[in-house]
Amino acid sequence: MQGVVRTLAQRSIRPSQALRPSLYRTWPAIARYNSTTQGPRTPSSATPTTPTASAVNTEPNQSTQTKRRWSGLRITLLVAKYTGFLIGSAAVGVLLIGAGVFVHDAFTYSERHLDRVPVSPLALNPKRGGPKNLPIAEVTLEDEENEESIKIAGKPRLVIIGGGWGAIGLLKTLNPGDYHVTVIAPETFTTFTPLLPSAAVSTVQVRSLIEPIRKIIARVRGHFLNGYAVDLVMSEQLVEVETVASDGMKKRLYVPYDKLVIAVGSVSSTHGVPGLEHCFQLKTINDARNIKRRLFDNFETASLPTTTPEERKRLLTFVICGGGPTGVETAAEIYDLCQEDIVNYFPKICRKEVEIYVIQSRDHILNTYSESISKYAEQRFNRDGISVITNARVKEVWKDKVVYTIRAEEKDKDGKVVKVNKEVSVPSNFVLWSTGIAMNPFTRRVSDLLPNQVHKKAIEVDAHLRVVGAPLGTVYALGDAATIETSVVSHILELVDEADKDKDGRIDYNEWQIMVARIKKKIPMAGPHLEKVRDLFERYDIDHDDSLTINEVATLLAELGNKITSLPATAQVASQQGKYLGHKLSKIARKEAILAANGISSDVGDDVVSKPFHYRHLGSLAYIGNAAVFDYQGLSLMGGLAAMYAWRSIYWSEQVSSRTRALLMFDWVIRGIWGRDLSNI
Amino acid sequence: MQGVVRTLAQRSIRPSQALRPSLYRTWPAIARYNSTTQGPRTPSSATPTTPTASAVNTEPNQSTQTKRRWSGLRITLLVAKYTGFLIGSAAVGVLLIGAGVFVHDAFTYSERHLDRVPVSPLALNPKRGGPKNLPIAEVTLEDEENEESIKIAGKPRLVIIGGGWGAIGLLKTLNPGDYHVTVIAPETFTTFTPLLPSAAVSTVQVRSLIEPIRKIIARVRGHFLNGYAVDLVMSEQLVEVETVASDGMKKRLYVPYDKLVIAVGSVSSTHGVPGLEHCFQLKTINDARNIKRRLFDNFETASLPTTTPEERKRLLTFVICGGGPTGVETAAEIYDLCQEDIVNYFPKICRKEVEIYVIQSRDHILNTYSESISKYAEQRFNRDGISVITNARVKEVWKDKVVYTIRAEEKDKDGKVVKVNKEVSVPSNFVLWSTGIAMNPFTRRVSDLLPNQVHKKAIEVDAHLRVVGAPLGTVYALGDAATIETSVVSHILELVDEADKDKDGRIDYNEWQIMVARIKKKIPMAGPHLEKVRDLFERYDIDHDDSLTINEVATLLAELGNKITSLPATAQVASQQGKYLGHKLSKIARKEAILAANGISSDVGDDVVSKPFHYRHLGSLAYIGNAAVFDYQGLSLMGGLAAMYAWRSIYWSEQVSSRTRALLMFDWVIRGIWGRDLSNI
Repeated sequence: MQGVVRTLAQRSIRPSQALRPSLYRTWPAIARYNSTTQGPRTPSSATPTTPTASAVNTEPNQSTQTKRRWSGLRITLLVAKYTGFLIGSAAVGVLLIGAGVFVHDAFTYSERHLDRVPVSPLALNPKRGGPKNLPIAEVTLEDEENEESIKIAGKPRLVIIGGGWGAIGLLKTLNPGDYHVTVIAPETFTTFTPLLPSAAVSTVQVRSLIEPIRKIIARVRGHFLNGYAVDLVMSEQLVEVETVASDGMKKRLYVPYDKLVIAVGSVSSTHGVPGLEHCFQLKTINDARNIKRRLFDNFETASLPTTTPEERKRLLTFVICGGGPTGVETAAEIYDLCQEDIVNYFPKICRKEVEIYVIQSRDHILNTYSESISKYAEQRFNRDGISVITNARVKEVWKDKVVYTIRAEEKDKDGKVVKVNKEVSVPSNFVLWSTGIAMNPFTRRVSDLLPNQVHKKAIEVDAHLRVVGAPLGTVYALGDAATIETSVVSHILELVDEADKDKDGRIDYNEWQIMVARIKKKIPMAGPHLEKVRDLFERYDIDHDDSLTINEVATLLAELGNKITSLPATAQVASQQGKYLGHKLSKIARKEAILAANGISSDVGDDVVSKPFHYRHLGSLAYIGNAAVFDYQGLSLMGGLAAMYAWRSIYWSEQVSSRTRALLMFDWVIRGIWGRDLSNI
Repeated sequence: MQGVVRTLAQRSIRPSQALRPSLYRTWPAIARYNSTTQGPRTPSSATPTTPTASAVNTEPNQSTQTKRRWSGLRITLLVAKYTGFLIGSAAVGVLLIGAGVFVHDAFTYSERHLDRVPVSPLALNPKRGGPKNLPIAEVTLEDEENEESIKIAGKPRLVIIGGGWGAIGLLKTLNPGDYHVTVIAPETFTTFTPLLPSAAVSTVQVRSLIEPIRKIIARVRGHFLNGYAVDLVMSEQLVEVETVASDGMKKRLYVPYDKLVIAVGSVSSTHGVPGLEHCFQLKTINDARNIKRRLFDNFETASLPTTTPEERKRLLTFVICGGGPTGVETAAEIYDLCQEDIVNYFPKICRKEVEIYVIQSRDHILNTYSESISKYAEQRFNRDGISVITNARVKEVWKDKVVYTIRAEEKDKDGKVVKVNKEVSVPSNFVLWSTGIAMNPFTRRVSDLLPNQVHKKAIEVDAHLRVVGAPLGTVYALGDAATIETSVVSHILELVDEADKDKDGRIDYNEWQIMVARIKKKIPMAGPHLEKVRDLFERYDIDHDDSLTINEVATLLAELGNKITSLPATAQVASQQGKYLGHKLSKIARKEAILAANGISSDVGDDVVSKPFHYRHLGSLAYIGNAAVFDYQGLSLMGGLAAMYAWRSIYWSEQVSSRTRALLMFDWVIRGIWGRDLSNI
């Protein structure tokens, strides 16, 4: 950059000579031509010690004469020069980066050998105990490696179950050294789930979406345990974990905790539809790989001479059940794949026969977004030939077809128009199921352990993300696995007890104001519904005696609870909850350390150090095929390629590591230049 | 670059002023300091129309005075300036490339729709025929898509079976439009096999080694058929192909050919060792993936608290059977992985317990390389703690261990030292089998079809790569699937008939010279052994009657044949054979077209248009852990990091496409900056 600026500055001083030397180097032929027509000139290879006065004096006249004659040529040369400069810069840049990386590379190789690795005998042969007399992992293999490990081994044990958005959010904000951290997860990596639809069609590589958990926990010097959490012994603060030995046998052990975070996510809801084993899902890396394999296999099989035209049609019919962001983005990505790559490398008939269906049970696809966005997406899909079928319910999925019902108008035998459920069958060899969430087995188990857990889809937590019913300050849950309680009425006894200062069994307006403050603290999500304090009081004071009876309070609280909508099961919520919890746990650790240093033993509660969790919705976005839609605080944005780049930028900035950021950027570049990889693996 | 050159040139003319303007911009504080201490100076923002004579005249004196005073500062500034320039260039370069790609990206999106795709009814419902009455794929789905397709559909059918080095070499050199090309392969992509060991430990990504065959055949407008060749009907020029339908059922069809190229590679030789089903191989992408999964699973399981110390040791013992390049490189890559990544992210004990064994049946590893290379590699491995066990034979492989025998000296009961076969058992959870090659089922079938095919490991071809015994000029074989005949004696009748001009049943010296010429043409690989024509003649002329009897000729030819070594089963040979065949087939097509245009029907033989295949050995190379060895025409090169980069450059330049080249380069950069991806998928 500075070179450009400098050259321009010099040019204003000495126009003709400032430009030439470099030109001579770039276009020798032109330079020779110039020097023959423009009279004698100092060749650049000659090196006069100082410029003479005569050279300076004769120049202006000559240059004014030649300026006009050669101005056209000069502009051309100027453009060419800067183009040359830019290309040169780019080349230099790339070379430098390459060289830098290789120099760095040379230092990554080490020939160090480990001489002695201190390991506690307890880590090699753990003691047994707990209700099932299983090994208890009290000491890890790493706890005595060096002084720092030994120091961390003495800290409170923070056990995190799961490696998704919630867990990573927590790990990113947790202060290193505050806890002895253990992450338990069945997968050794975390996945950037929002881009799974892209990975499923090779727009980005599957591996660009994952980051090893071990690399993430290195910052807090955490430990990783590859396994499934299966049970919880809250009385002894033990998690029961199932691991797989090399012979495939399952082995169980206990992991002790001081603080436990349940961040295990969810599984897909079946909605009781039979045949879902024939469907694909899109929640993990393996799902994306399986989809990719099936998609490309379908195209390969459709290209075979042994495939009948009917079978070809079936192979090229892609059905997506669920019109949420995942379903919509997958449909869009499949369309992109066909439009940009299939059409170029497969028989054209394979592109022609493609049909993509999105089956949605509601009125619109993307129904959690604003109406204008839904409509824009539908229009776009309509133009692209993607069939959007709304108000339809999938009835059954077969190995070779999907059956759905749709409300239709028909004339009955009297000629009257009646609404009937019409059954439609679509032959297909690819069905994606992406609707709703359900509890996974561990969440279900935890929920069953606690009598006051009644929610069907997740573990109920309070506003501080503490599992309701578990010993205070020991068990947290977040993300898809958790739902913040919205039932105000279940706290009625407490609330009345706290608010009813005169203990007359009735709540007057002053007492009601106290109660409102209490509710806002306990269930912060009720806040927006409690703004009109006086109104509410008067509306529910049926007998107009300027006080509420317990019955009236109960009605009020029940109706208030119904108004609160739970947070959606999105990556955004999980990530924010994780970050909140990480900050809070670090705060707790710091306060306890200070108290302990002063010889005061204390159980610092979450309420003391931190406010309840508050969700800030940063907007929703979705990719809909060379276009993208955004929904940000009521503001709807949608558009083509520019919006798509914006969509990419947001996801790019949300990456868990600079490594995946680089990988992703590179994938997009590769896709732009060479198209998608069509390999069916 | 040009900017740097120009600035240096200007500097020799006007040292002080040439440098300053840009410095002022980069370090304003220094610039201000300079201008206050160095007296009045024209600020760069002022724009005098022409430099005055006085300015030029006064400058030299001033500059000589200040030069010495500020020379230290100036050098510092100069260095800083160029550093700044370089970093600036790099940034500009990256930005430009980024912008360029995104601009390009915008044009890859198209909204075109296919209106009508003409497809021949014969392609949709192929006719049946051949000995098994199967569908015959006479017309492909693409043959009527446009005018060019129709034109190509009329060309001779070239069918290539396989998608490895040989096939790709052929496709790269074949002239577009000469043939109606069909590639039949069970995998939809070609693999850069030499880097599979790197991919198996995540040094490079698995997907960086593959390129879709459809993208490669696009150049010659070829067709791809995903399936296995299972049989050949040479009389009707049909290949029988097995495809898999979407329901997993196998379907067979015939693909007609005018010219057939068998490039199906080989499978691993078992050497009759039992238990090989417990071994990994490293011939395909899936092999590399499976190895990667097992390696990382082993490390994860070894990190579990439920794993016993003995089991941990077993999990971290890696055994490689075979000391060829693949085995050696895999051992080196596993060592690198441990040394560079495992040690940083897994419990240190997991690195400490690692043991890597290379079991080799010969005296040295890399025994096809020069002795100095073998020794260098062994020294290197010895230093790195990789156990090289030579003169050992694997006896059995079990699920949890490897048993090998080794020659050892023992004292018998009389105290005498005797050599015995000692049996050693190594508990391990990872065994790689990488020794030798064997025929795959299709090669076996072709070999069985032809009575004069006797070779055990491959199909015998003549010096023109034509399958011996097949109708001339219709069936070729190359790469691992083929071996060029080395048996001279089998041609004895022909040779004597051609050489024995006076038909006296004896070969005199003149006739022997004719015979030598004939042999060199038929079996070019015999050439180097036929140089001393007179010597040979005299040596085998037992009765010294200055002529050879048929018996003497037979002995000579048999012994000559034994001296010829077959070409190794390497990527290099396959690739060269493919390229040779591609060139030749294009030549044949051209000549035939010219003759046909002149109304002359002719079967142009390979002998007429082309010389026999000649293999040029470009050297062998192997990576041995932050070092590499090269063996080039007897010249042995070996060394550390620099050699490793040379090794990388060679493989890099051998890539099948610029896409994989970019991917590979990026992988190396990513590895250099962030280390390997430790995910077990």
